[in-house]
Amino acid sequence: MNIIKNLDSPSIFIGKQGNGIISFGSGQPDLPPPKEAIEGIDIRHDLRYGLIQGEVVLREALSKEYPTSTADNFVITNGASEALDLIFRAIGKGKVLLPKPYYYSYPPIIKLAGMEPVFLDLKEGRIDLSDFNKKVKDCKAVLINSPSNPTGRVEAIETLKEIESLTRKMNIYIISDEVYKDLIYERENYHIKGEHVITVNSFSKTYAMCGVRVGYLWSSDQSIVNKTIAIKTHTSMNTNLVAQDMALGAMNAPKEYIINQKKIWRQRRDSIYHGLCELGLDLWKPEGAFYVLPKVKKPKELVWKLYNDFKVITYLGEWFGAPDRIRLSYALDQNEIEEGLSRIKQALKEL
Amino acid sequence: MNIIKNLDSPSIFIGKQGNGIISFGSGQPDLPPPKEAIEGIDIRHDLRYGLIQGEVVLREALSKEYPTSTADNFVITNGASEALDLIFRAIGKGKVLLPKPYYYSYPPIIKLAGMEPVFLDLKEGRIDLSDFNKKVKDCKAVLINSPSNPTGRVEAIETLKEIESLTRKMNIYIISDEVYKDLIYERENYHIKGEHVITVNSFSKTYAMCGVRVGYLWSSDQSIVNKTIAIKTHTSMNTNLVAQDMALGAMNAPKEYIINQKKIWRQRRDSIYHGLCELGLDLWKPEGAFYVLPKVKKPKELVWKLYNDFKVITYLGEWFGAPDRIRLSYALDQNEIEEGLSRIKQALKEL
Repeated sequence: MNIIKNLDSPSIFIGKQGNGIISFGSGQPDLPPPKEAIEGIDIRHDLRYGLIQGEVVLREALSKEYPTSTADNFVITNGASEALDLIFRAIGKGKVLLPKPYYYSYPPIIKLAGMEPVFLDLKEGRIDLSDFNKKVKDCKAVLINSPSNPTGRVEAIETLKEIESLTRKMNIYIISDEVYKDLIYERENYHIKGEHVITVNSFSKTYAMCGVRVGYLWSSDQSIVNKTIAIKTHTSMNTNLVAQDMALGAMNAPKEYIINQKKIWRQRRDSIYHGLCELGLDLWKPEGAFYVLPKVKKPKELVWKLYNDFKVITYLGEWFGAPDRIRLSYALDQNEIEEGLSRIKQALKEL
Repeated sequence: MNIIKNLDSPSIFIGKQGNGIISFGSGQPDLPPPKEAIEGIDIRHDLRYGLIQGEVVLREALSKEYPTSTADNFVITNGASEALDLIFRAIGKGKVLLPKPYYYSYPPIIKLAGMEPVFLDLKEGRIDLSDFNKKVKDCKAVLINSPSNPTGRVEAIETLKEIESLTRKMNIYIISDEVYKDLIYERENYHIKGEHVITVNSFSKTYAMCGVRVGYLWSSDQSIVNKTIAIKTHTSMNTNLVAQDMALGAMNAPKEYIINQKKIWRQRRDSIYHGLCELGLDLWKPEGAFYVLPKVKKPKELVWKLYNDFKVITYLGEWFGAPDRIRLSYALDQNEIEEGLSRIKQALKEL
């Protein structure tokens, strides 16, 4: 195993596995996708260009999950990443308010589109409405991510409704990244509504098919939908047709698939949360997604030591705007979580 | 059939087919992809995130087609469109010199990235080097598309070598969009070389799989490769893994597949070129790709009349920067080409 030399970005850990390494790094389900995803591939599919907006059958299937929607409200994209990129490019110049800590791609995507990120302070890992009220005024858009990567927190429904109503009055867009909507341990997802709302979603986490890259955006604001289609016409055209077959296939999986997944995630959540509490770490209890973001004393030294001396991968909180913390994904099985925790215990002692 | 009301963009013709319509519109092969593409799908493929740069096996296979290259020189993208989008975003501000008429997505992609298009005049449908010399000086990049959509022309190897050498001296990037490289009727493709060259390519046209959206960029300038990977990490992540399986599968098709395709395209080219000449139209002889761009007297009236009265789809040259012309794709079978030509003859008479 090579000693790592710097800690610039998560990419330093890419491809590091096997050899007894335990990785709390990568943010993706380790469980298999439903067999319906593969079965969904139509080998007689006409492989000429599809509609830029996405296949009608897939958008119609999705519209059943969004009350009062039609296929026209959706654009199928190369994962949630492309949906976000298209949305910010469609909105254009201005400020975007988002919570910090944040998913590490948010600030670059916002800046690449020529917009400027403005950061919200959190209280107990959740949005602080008084800070929100102060900062929202000169923003063009607000980016919400509940459940959140990297905090694992879920916003209170009251907070979301308050934000919904405030931004509606001020004519500010809400971009609601709900890719972890099917991984909430405490309640059902609350779908933020309104003419000014753009929801971003994905098949990646719900159906464990990150590498297939199918996501989508939803909005009842037809002008935003049309602008994103106009941009996608030039920047990538239709999303892969075979991937869309797989997404539609995955939607045919029995409800138990998602219920069983959530059960496994909750067990792992309990295990890592209690384990880290027992080690005396200060952390927020994850309510959704599959991340914990504990405070630690010397984050860089710890992440470095964990990898080089204990073969444990963790991510620096700094990459997510939380320099006094480290991020652990619990997308690995129970035995590995326990073995990883015992190595972390040892590393903390030695530090 | 609905009467069309305006002629803003090619999208007005999307989904218009059947009912005796003959379409010279869409720029994509009508022939089927090789069976090896579908056979390439590995149903046991791990569907977790792949490398942003693309699967190593696919990049290694491609490197055999590019002398002195390795897998490191490639980034696999969602079609050539995403490759172009990433490249211009990576280069950043400045002017891009490109021939006019142009593929209609070029100016929007360039502007979306914050760059400015500057247009080259053509001589007999090919680059005029004296105009090139005049305009290249204050440009950051040059975009070449040979064979060209929409002109069907192929640049002389001497012209390409001259551009290669001039831009090398001036430290200007060449972005060479070679998606029609396997559809040249007159000679082999000439792959522009040099440290300052970025080649864009695709599986779409060569293997008739446009809807699968697999393209790539190639460069021996590692800093450009790394910048595009860094952007793609945030804007779309890895290109769909199943699509990459299919691309690798397609590369295993016997050489005859491409040879046979080219034979068919050449027959069609001869048929439409002679047919349009017989109608007295002024046009350049296509040397590659599958487009003709004849001059016509009243382009808007003709395109409109052809569609509404004769059920024939053609594209306005205006969309490609050629307002005195119309574009016809000959990606349809011989009988349809002949029937289409006889309808065009009638329409021209009536106009």
